[in-house]
Amino acid sequence: MSATRYTYLGPEGTFTEAALRTLPEAATRELVPMVSVPAALDAVRNGEAAAALVPIENSVEGGVTATLDELASGEPLMIYREVLLPITFALLVRPGTKLSDVKTVTGHPVAQPQVRNWLRAHLPDALWESAASNADGARLVQEGRFDAAFAGEFAAATYGLEALVTEIHDAQNAETRFVLVGRPARPAAPTGADKTSVVIWQRDDHPGALLELLQEFAVRGVNLMLLQSRPTGAGIGNYCFAIDAEGHVSDRRVGEALMGLKRICPQVRFLGSYPQAGVSASGSTGRTPRPGTSDAEFVAAADWLARCQDGRA
Amino acid sequence: MSATRYTYLGPEGTFTEAALRTLPEAATRELVPMVSVPAALDAVRNGEAAAALVPIENSVEGGVTATLDELASGEPLMIYREVLLPITFALLVRPGTKLSDVKTVTGHPVAQPQVRNWLRAHLPDALWESAASNADGARLVQEGRFDAAFAGEFAAATYGLEALVTEIHDAQNAETRFVLVGRPARPAAPTGADKTSVVIWQRDDHPGALLELLQEFAVRGVNLMLLQSRPTGAGIGNYCFAIDAEGHVSDRRVGEALMGLKRICPQVRFLGSYPQAGVSASGSTGRTPRPGTSDAEFVAAADWLARCQDGRA
Amino acid sequence: MSATRYTYLGPEGTFTEAALRTLPEAATRELVPMVSVPAALDAVRNGEAAAALVPIENSVEGGVTATLDELASGEPLMIYREVLLPITFALLVRPGTKLSDVKTVTGHPVAQPQVRNWLRAHLPDALWESAASNADGARLVQEGRFDAAFAGEFAAATYGLEALVTEIHDAQNAETRFVLVGRPARPAAPTGADKTSVVIWQRDDHPGALLELLQEFAVRGVNLMLLQSRPTGAGIGNYCFAIDAEGHVSDRRVGEALMGLKRICPQVRFLGSYPQAGVSASGSTGRTPRPGTSDAEFVAAADWLARCQDGRA
Amino acid sequence: MSATRYTYLGPEGTFTEAALRTLPEAATRELVPMVSVPAALDAVRNGEAAAALVPIENSVEGGVTATLDELASGEPLMIYREVLLPITFALLVRPGTKLSDVKTVTGHPVAQPQVRNWLRAHLPDALWESAASNADGARLVQEGRFDAAFAGEFAAATYGLEALVTEIHDAQNAETRFVLVGRPARPAAPTGADKTSVVIWQRDDHPGALLELLQEFAVRGVNLMLLQSRPTGAGIGNYCFAIDAEGHVSDRRVGEALMGLKRICPQVRFLGSYPQAGVSASGSTGRTPRPGTSDAEFVAAADWLARCQDGRA
Repeated sequence: MSATRYTYLGPEGTFTEAALRTLPEAATRELVPMVSVPAALDAVRNGEAAAALVPIENSVEGGVTATLDELASGEPLMIYREVLLPITFALLVRPGTKLSDVKTVTGHPVAQPQVRNWLRAHLPDALWESAASNADGARLVQEGRFDAAFAGEFAAATYGLEALVTEIHDAQNAETRFVLVGRPARPAAPTGADKTSVVIWQRDDHPGALLELLQEFAVRGVNLMLLQSRPTGAGIGNYCFAIDAEGHVSDRRVGEALMGLKRICPQVRFLGSYPQAGVSASGSTGRTPRPGTSDAEFVAAADWLARCQDGRA
Repeated sequence: MSATRYTYLGPEGTFTEAALRTLPEAATRELVPMVSVPAALDAVRNGEAAAALVPIENSVEGGVTATLDELASGEPLMIYREVLLPITFALLVRPGTKLSDVKTVTGHPVAQPQVRNWLRAHLPDALWESAASNADGARLVQEGRFDAAFAGEFAAATYGLEALVTEIHDAQNAETRFVLVGRPARPAAPTGADKTSVVIWQRDDHPGALLELLQEFAVRGVNLMLLQSRPTGAGIGNYCFAIDAEGHVSDRRVGEALMGLKRICPQVRFLGSYPQAGVSASGSTGRTPRPGTSDAEFVAAADWLARCQDGRA
Repeated sequence: MSATRYTYLGPEGTFTEAALRTLPEAATRELVPMVSVPAALDAVRNGEAAAALVPIENSVEGGVTATLDELASGEPLMIYREVLLPITFALLVRPGTKLSDVKTVTGHPVAQPQVRNWLRAHLPDALWESAASNADGARLVQEGRFDAAFAGEFAAATYGLEALVTEIHDAQNAETRFVLVGRPARPAAPTGADKTSVVIWQRDDHPGALLELLQEFAVRGVNLMLLQSRPTGAGIGNYCFAIDAEGHVSDRRVGEALMGLKRICPQVRFLGSYPQAGVSASGSTGRTPRPGTSDAEFVAAADWLARCQDGRA
Repeated sequence: MSATRYTYLGPEGTFTEAALRTLPEAATRELVPMVSVPAALDAVRNGEAAAALVPIENSVEGGVTATLDELASGEPLMIYREVLLPITFALLVRPGTKLSDVKTVTGHPVAQPQVRNWLRAHLPDALWESAASNADGARLVQEGRFDAAFAGEFAAATYGLEALVTEIHDAQNAETRFVLVGRPARPAAPTGADKTSVVIWQRDDHPGALLELLQEFAVRGVNLMLLQSRPTGAGIGNYCFAIDAEGHVSDRRVGEALMGLKRICPQVRFLGSYPQAGVSASGSTGRTPRPGTSDAEFVAAADWLARCQDGRA
């Protein structure tokens, strides 16, 4: 049943699965690993799954382009939730292996820059070869093709391995952001610490064109949390922008900014409003919103305008 | 009956009266000259007159501060009409006077800079003394206290004088803008070439404070036609701004800009929306409005936002 | 000798004279009252005086248009000093006159709105008639043509009158700003609390044209202290702007902003850099300058750019 | 000798090699393929090569993050040239193979989305498996492990293959931009159609922070050709921006914009000024530069400022 099935970027044992399992509802869903982000999202588009969890942004590698491009094109989808997962690696080995036994290591190519310093310090002579995913690397260790794999500690059990070293990460604060994506529906109610995602296309590229788009946010006091350019496919220099703005589509300041974009952009794709991960609803980012941008102030101004139009101001 | 009485800045024979008489309705109103702008407007405020015609802007002298300040404070008033009048002077003399007889001339102080070059060329030795108004100057000539007065040609008949020279004006294109002011009521419907007047007070004076106010207009593509600072009375450096914006309060882009101001300014006073004088409704200023700022585009964007909020975008 | 002669807006006994006498150097100059602002400034232009003191801004009445317009056109002049003077009126009478004797009062037209409430409360039946200046009003009282005149208390002695009531002012904080104007020369060295005055003309009036001008200041973190529109004389709607900016022309951020204006405006007239009146050099307005706009930061950035251009960054 | 050695992202037969061979100087250099972008650039950093050619932007896939991140960190490098190469694929087979013989195909993973439609139309039943590079795919065909490989037509000769079909590309205008990178030195003289690359770090993330950065360009009329966010490694939401601006670091408007960024950003890395690929020097992008931003206008404004400071304006 699609309503109880969630897909995710597989295979089993990846950080994506770990992120998915942080959602309470995951306990009651059928979790299905898929071979790629497009495959995970297509299952949602064609109704085989209710939702898909895919990575969208990594603090070391940046935006996950496959996810950004899938969300920006094709049948519309919407984001309903985000999950932040700290990324630290464990060195997984077959039981009994000692560090001095490790001559060959594997892992996902994006893991390599995140463990490079650790390798240099602790296994300077080990040979690295990339695997298709961190989980796949674990499987190759299980099969005996490598001595050790960098992967999430949670992957050890799946592949009958043990974590020889844990908490390996060159970069402090390495984390990955995942999004739970479904078919378009009414966004969840605002929590007070929300985020709104859109993709916008520019009208042209005169000096200041991007500036005009950003002013639609700034003039309404809406803070941007992400601005990621992506090629439109129309040739070098043609970009659209994936934008995360602070606030909910039902917040007046956000709604007015989105309408402003809608009017001046040839295309705007709304990707949803959802709770910010890792912040409590009360005060989230510590930013004081600009005076004059609360819902109450929008309503008061609208009342005033109506009175002006009626000659009662 | 107040409904049929219009006051104006007197005395009789001023340019203000001439401007008032360009309004078709003037033919059926009782036109009452008042000694000052405040007096003309107070008659409206207290119900003795239905409307008042007062000068607000002169192409040589600038904003008429008495009018601007009266509109910015006290019991609210609204502008319903503007009249543009070219300002050229006639040299009024008692019948029979020749140019070579003119040893003393008078006129309103603001007339002097507008006829200075003409005087230097044609009456280099004449002595100038100011009168309380152009019309008052004419009266003083009638009484024999001066040989000639600069005033509107139309004032000659009122005071039994004749226009010895006409079309005197140092500055090309000298004109004065007058406004017809009444008590607050619903503005006239938009004509397609309208103007909206407001007075706004700044929240504070950090660098860019005025910039923020102007951006509320610019981001919605609303053109400014007048920006006049006026002291608030709270000491040197404290200003409010009288602003004329192109468009009507019922135009979506204008309304949204006004609401934006209302939210960030401690005070905004709406002074009305009314037809631009001297322009036909179709194409007025020759400016192409910025793409994305028509009412139709506002409505379309609002529809789209509603669909986003409902999950149907 | 012109080098020791200062003109001022007369006649004797005006607030302008009082302001001039606050300057230490006034004690050693010949102070010459002139009949008008243009006359005072023309004496400087033609070398008859070294400098002129004229009012430029009043906290109740706003910009003094005669001064603004004179500075904006004709032979260039420069401002070297500003003086702030609190404006309170005294009721001057012939010795022996009692308040109950006062049936007629006079004063400068701009004094009237500043004493209106006081008159209503204390002399509700007195008749007001305007005089050419506050000092002229005092003279008319001396001559017996009026019972009392509103003027500066300091004018009493000059005209043999006594101050029946002092400290009359409807508006709190009423003050007038005067400027000492001379022929162009190198501005005084910066004091740390300076002001720079310019007049700028706009290129055209597209939406946002004024915004562009103000951005030249804002992007360099330069605060505006005055923005006063003045008609250019080319017809209604054609304005130039008198601007006072915080800082000195030798401050890098101010210089760069002025160059930016110079490039995009058809005309910019530099009116001088001079110490702000009423502030100590250390910390003046209490505003923290925007980060990145100090001279040291400008110099460091210029050094860095030179290294980039040389391939040494 | 390093002075004659250029590295590039290998292996032989890739589009990068083809791009490198479009440079006239390539004929007289030793061209050395490297296994990765970091390896190619490290050879430059440590003096083993004079320059490296690496891909930086792809019209389908977007910014090449490995290149962007290498340029943004580590020992400084500079861009001296860019090369635009249209990306069309040839289907390479062993001599004698017919289209109907092709059951298995290979190629670089990023090639797949660019040939997907062609495959669906012409080889719907062929099995795709990814290779490490397009050239590597050709080698695997040579070795008989696949029937055909998608690669540049120029790779055929290297691997003894023939191009069965050419000009295959799903996306119109697919092209890749490559940059020639060397150690820092004085940039080449401006050609009139140049580009300047920088990486900037934001001070903080208040609403409008990015806007402020972009205004440094906009207020000087400098057009942006690329804005690519990259994570700083300090956690989700922390970004720097790779920016390509139109113009040369020796253009006054570009230099002033860069100095503005230098002052307000905690870090700015200058990556060079170099001729725009694919445009003639005379008129390049067809954009009219904003009035007031030519070098001549900057010089005139600086002269004027000096006169102001000297009292000779």
